Amino acid sequence: MPTHSFERPTGSLVEIAIESRALAGNLLGDPTTRSVAVYLPAGYDGGAEDYPLFVDVVGFTGSGLAHVGWRAYGESVPQRLDRLVAEGRMGPVIAAFPDCFTSLGGNQYVNSAAMGNWEDFLIHEMLPRLEAEFRLRPGRDHRAIFGKSSGGYGAMVHGMRRADAWGAVACHSGDMAFELCYRVDFPKTVRVVAEKGGIQGYLDWFSAQPKTDNDMLSTIMILAMAASYDPDPGAPKGIRLPVDMETCALDEARWARWLAQDPVVMIELPECQENLRSLRGLYIECGTKDQYHLVFGARALVKRLETLGIPHRFEEFDDDHTNVDYRLDVSLPFLFEAVG
Amino acid sequence: MPTHSFERPTGSLVEIAIESRALAGNLLGDPTTRSVAVYLPAGYDGGAEDYPLFVDVVGFTGSGLAHVGWRAYGESVPQRLDRLVAEGRMGPVIAAFPDCFTSLGGNQYVNSAAMGNWEDFLIHEMLPRLEAEFRLRPGRDHRAIFGKSSGGYGAMVHGMRRADAWGAVACHSGDMAFELCYRVDFPKTVRVVAEKGGIQGYLDWFSAQPKTDNDMLSTIMILAMAASYDPDPGAPKGIRLPVDMETCALDEARWARWLAQDPVVMIELPECQENLRSLRGLYIECGTKDQYHLVFGARALVKRLETLGIPHRFEEFDDDHTNVDYRLDVSLPFLFEAVG
Amino acid sequence: MPTHSFERPTGSLVEIAIESRALAGNLLGDPTTRSVAVYLPAGYDGGAEDYPLFVDVVGFTGSGLAHVGWRAYGESVPQRLDRLVAEGRMGPVIAAFPDCFTSLGGNQYVNSAAMGNWEDFLIHEMLPRLEAEFRLRPGRDHRAIFGKSSGGYGAMVHGMRRADAWGAVACHSGDMAFELCYRVDFPKTVRVVAEKGGIQGYLDWFSAQPKTDNDMLSTIMILAMAASYDPDPGAPKGIRLPVDMETCALDEARWARWLAQDPVVMIELPECQENLRSLRGLYIECGTKDQYHLVFGARALVKRLETLGIPHRFEEFDDDHTNVDYRLDVSLPFLFEAVG
Amino acid sequence: MPTHSFERPTGSLVEIAIESRALAGNLLGDPTTRSVAVYLPAGYDGGAEDYPLFVDVVGFTGSGLAHVGWRAYGESVPQRLDRLVAEGRMGPVIAAFPDCFTSLGGNQYVNSAAMGNWEDFLIHEMLPRLEAEFRLRPGRDHRAIFGKSSGGYGAMVHGMRRADAWGAVACHSGDMAFELCYRVDFPKTVRVVAEKGGIQGYLDWFSAQPKTDNDMLSTIMILAMAASYDPDPGAPKGIRLPVDMETCALDEARWARWLAQDPVVMIELPECQENLRSLRGLYIECGTKDQYHLVFGARALVKRLETLGIPHRFEEFDDDHTNVDYRLDVSLPFLFEAVG
Repeated sequence: MPTHSFERPTGSLVEIAIESRALAGNLLGDPTTRSVAVYLPAGYDGGAEDYPLFVDVVGFTGSGLAHVGWRAYGESVPQRLDRLVAEGRMGPVIAAFPDCFTSLGGNQYVNSAAMGNWEDFLIHEMLPRLEAEFRLRPGRDHRAIFGKSSGGYGAMVHGMRRADAWGAVACHSGDMAFELCYRVDFPKTVRVVAEKGGIQGYLDWFSAQPKTDNDMLSTIMILAMAASYDPDPGAPKGIRLPVDMETCALDEARWARWLAQDPVVMIELPECQENLRSLRGLYIECGTKDQYHLVFGARALVKRLETLGIPHRFEEFDDDHTNVDYRLDVSLPFLFEAVG
Repeated sequence: MPTHSFERPTGSLVEIAIESRALAGNLLGDPTTRSVAVYLPAGYDGGAEDYPLFVDVVGFTGSGLAHVGWRAYGESVPQRLDRLVAEGRMGPVIAAFPDCFTSLGGNQYVNSAAMGNWEDFLIHEMLPRLEAEFRLRPGRDHRAIFGKSSGGYGAMVHGMRRADAWGAVACHSGDMAFELCYRVDFPKTVRVVAEKGGIQGYLDWFSAQPKTDNDMLSTIMILAMAASYDPDPGAPKGIRLPVDMETCALDEARWARWLAQDPVVMIELPECQENLRSLRGLYIECGTKDQYHLVFGARALVKRLETLGIPHRFEEFDDDHTNVDYRLDVSLPFLFEAVG
Repeated sequence: MPTHSFERPTGSLVEIAIESRALAGNLLGDPTTRSVAVYLPAGYDGGAEDYPLFVDVVGFTGSGLAHVGWRAYGESVPQRLDRLVAEGRMGPVIAAFPDCFTSLGGNQYVNSAAMGNWEDFLIHEMLPRLEAEFRLRPGRDHRAIFGKSSGGYGAMVHGMRRADAWGAVACHSGDMAFELCYRVDFPKTVRVVAEKGGIQGYLDWFSAQPKTDNDMLSTIMILAMAASYDPDPGAPKGIRLPVDMETCALDEARWARWLAQDPVVMIELPECQENLRSLRGLYIECGTKDQYHLVFGARALVKRLETLGIPHRFEEFDDDHTNVDYRLDVSLPFLFEAVG
Repeated sequence: MPTHSFERPTGSLVEIAIESRALAGNLLGDPTTRSVAVYLPAGYDGGAEDYPLFVDVVGFTGSGLAHVGWRAYGESVPQRLDRLVAEGRMGPVIAAFPDCFTSLGGNQYVNSAAMGNWEDFLIHEMLPRLEAEFRLRPGRDHRAIFGKSSGGYGAMVHGMRRADAWGAVACHSGDMAFELCYRVDFPKTVRVVAEKGGIQGYLDWFSAQPKTDNDMLSTIMILAMAASYDPDPGAPKGIRLPVDMETCALDEARWARWLAQDPVVMIELPECQENLRSLRGLYIECGTKDQYHLVFGARALVKRLETLGIPHRFEEFDDDHTNVDYRLDVSLPFLFEAVG
């Protein structure tokens, strides 16, 4: 069967709660006390050694808390770390799994008036708290951030903007080339939202459903992107689409605010180039059959990295966007080599 | 049950063959002798009356020859015409159903080095032939062109460019606002075509399949659009996508050639405005749930028509793009009032 | 591309109307005047030769009238016959395409109080009419019946019961092993019908829809089977499912009436065996990936034919149930060899 | 939004490992050391009170370990229990979540040479271990077993056979009326398995895939049913389908072994009737749109319970089989009333 690990994790899992000020006032009205699951490797208790830190920022509809949970025909991230260590492919690390789920279904890990200041939460609240409570090797040189999908995006932009906080980045199927991965969904989103009378009407309808389905998650995801990249404090929950709601014509000024946060655009900024250049490890990958077309953005970004002489490792693989956790067997050892 | 008409058509159906010079040299290598089915109403034989002409330009994967054929739980266009006449909602017409199917699966009814000069075929070869063989009231004032989807596009651009040939236009769910109805499909098309080694590879693979499926038809449709709007004589069958095949980045210059044939762009040209203004009837409609997002382009176009004071009738209806032939019950009487 | 034939048929197509007594009183209330399209080969007019007769009984949602119509990336049956003759793989025939569509979406070509006596219509009304109007070689030895899906079923049971009327049979993906192809759909059908308040409620709802979709066609098809195999004059349009409408428990007595018309059951009757044995040609095929699981019934039937020493030709092919008309290239020459 | 609980569980979660002898020798070769997650309510630590026991047996592709994990737009079972207690709808309980996942993707919670003796594991190994380690009110009168889908089946048959071990049962959308929920899938399963060369070939192919998809899970589920209900020690992993692999004809003798474990058949046994009658609470429900048709079996079973005068509570609700955890808000308080 596809790898189902019956092996229970050998380390221990703890959960800390952080009362965040960075998230205060978020227009979604989401709670500001957030959990972070932390996996301590076997041997941590009673030992004195300190460890590198790996932070997992997850994709849409996920949470760090889900990544430590049981998975059919698969492994949780703790189980995977145990196995990779047992196989000698990396050494032990402390892994943090922040719960960044929001009422809009996910997170892009950036500062946003609507979603909350998640970049600040992660770097200025979570990292100090982890360093205080656990035996972490201090400093960015011993920290890696990794994720897939929205998490891949988060890892990449954190590498582009906050290389003071992170020593290595792994970006799996990360959102980039927004023209191809978000814009193509605007017409459908506008139609669906219009059917419910607009954004407030859609949010009300969404809340009233007994359960979610894929169409609902696709729609709420685009709204979460709007809230992340271009919040409008005058709009319901700060959410406003960068298009005319009747004709779907693009509002170039608003769209420009999205694009300013697109990795394939950000790469042109000297500070982003310097930040990536300073990383001890930069890993990027995408499936060639990615149904969100993310492989195109990955290729475009990597072309620039090559021209700019920014060290990186790039891989395409023959699969799509879904259930590709097995690719962590490539990136986690890479990150350990960089910051371990 | 949904309306299945067991009534056989009361008129007579003939088929003429036109040896076309307009289509000679088309890069697809498609035949230049084309058929046109013509439905003559009951009473035509043995009568002396002349009739208005309705020309049906059909949507993708279709042919005029299919529109005179049997339809489960529905009506062929001849059956529909008979019924509308019997119900007193319009008078009898002669209806022409040209077969414009191509090896790329459809037609946009414009002149193209790759597809063939279909505008010229319809206006300079088919119309004179019909006027010579059948008792048609002469001149544009007694001719209507109608269609859905690609046919809606064809009817619209013929109204915008060739109001010398057509007196009335009905555009059902016509392609417009290419940013929303074509561009959103470029990433998927590039991926699929790249998997087969490029456009020639894709065409070879397509030909080798025993049958088509929806994914194949979606892909070949985008290739047909490229061949129609922006043929490249140096490319396989003249087909070239307006994007980088590795990153899917848009080639703005090539894309501009597509946009120049987008009704929502063409409406800004004074000659197009004058042509539409001169029509005796202009009908536009789209389903609000159109899965190709065509309702947005329709709204954008109609806003301009309103601002420009160009007479028209616009309707949105609560359905999608598929199997909406019943809407002809609205447009055919409208066209008869205009040119009958 | 998959074979699109731009070649127009070389023969001529005529349509006859038959006022049927066999269909009088059908509980569906469908018309009793039915059309039959007849394709006369090139050379028929002005010639004196007589021809074998091929009768095409079509699958669900179809009509003989559709089989003479235009087909994208394909051929109508007349086009296919022309090509097979031109390729020297068979000689010319007269082909008849009866319109057996009903308000329940299709036909099983058997006698039924609800659907009408279609076996009698085809054999006692259509065949004599065709022999009277066209130069057909007289007698069963020069007649073949072929079809796919419900048409494959019809061809098979006509061969099993009425070998006095037919000389050869080709059964493509024909309904058989009802336990596997119909019974598996009863739970879903019951649920859908129950949601609409029962069969009459479902029929009313169906009629009120502007168009059909696949789910509607799947449901109406099971109702058509009930009407064909086990009509109940006391039920709405004679339609009654052989299950308890609350628990879906099978009514064994009613189900037995269906099974009595299942080819894998009928093959045990001596008269059916003798009829098949007497045919000049018996062709059976099914795709291994048939999504209605018809390959299992085909295999079961063929095992019996082998044990009983009944001559036949059986082929499985690597495809499913959909768009497999290209397989007629195998059966039509086979039938010509048998009766031509 | 649909209820996403940001509230972290207030109790504590522990995990115990049980070295099972009941599972030794299972033909699947699955591990015999199994985990059970146990949720202890707030106030457990440092208290002296004892608690009723609720055991969650989960549906296919699940594990008890998953039911204590994070859920997007939802609640884990511990979160739900906390909330129901806070709302005053029930009192605190100890909840056990055994991991019964197998390499065939799930469990029916019965004794099987192929799957392992899961009934014995749960009752003779897990229950004593829980009673030894946690402050449980002793005896069946204070134990409830609940589950959905395969878990609903498990809860029901445990109630029918082992009312000595369980005081109350909640069966959500449980497998029953096997003719309708399993048999309808045999043709498709046979086809898929045959394409891979048989059961061993299918298992080998399955293991070699990088990930699972819905079709793979549907197929492996039927194989798991075969392994659960009718293991054949001579077959690969004890798996053998009750049909001819060429014609899909039913092997009535083998099928009878399945049916003997179908609740709608078992209800006819006096001992099963007595067991159910003796329960302190019996709750059954199913969605009317259940896509596995389980509502029919539920209705059939409930009809018998009514006729037999066996107390129960039965509810149908307007939803399907998927993501219906919110229904636990009905059954958990019901169970508490029965055994709390």
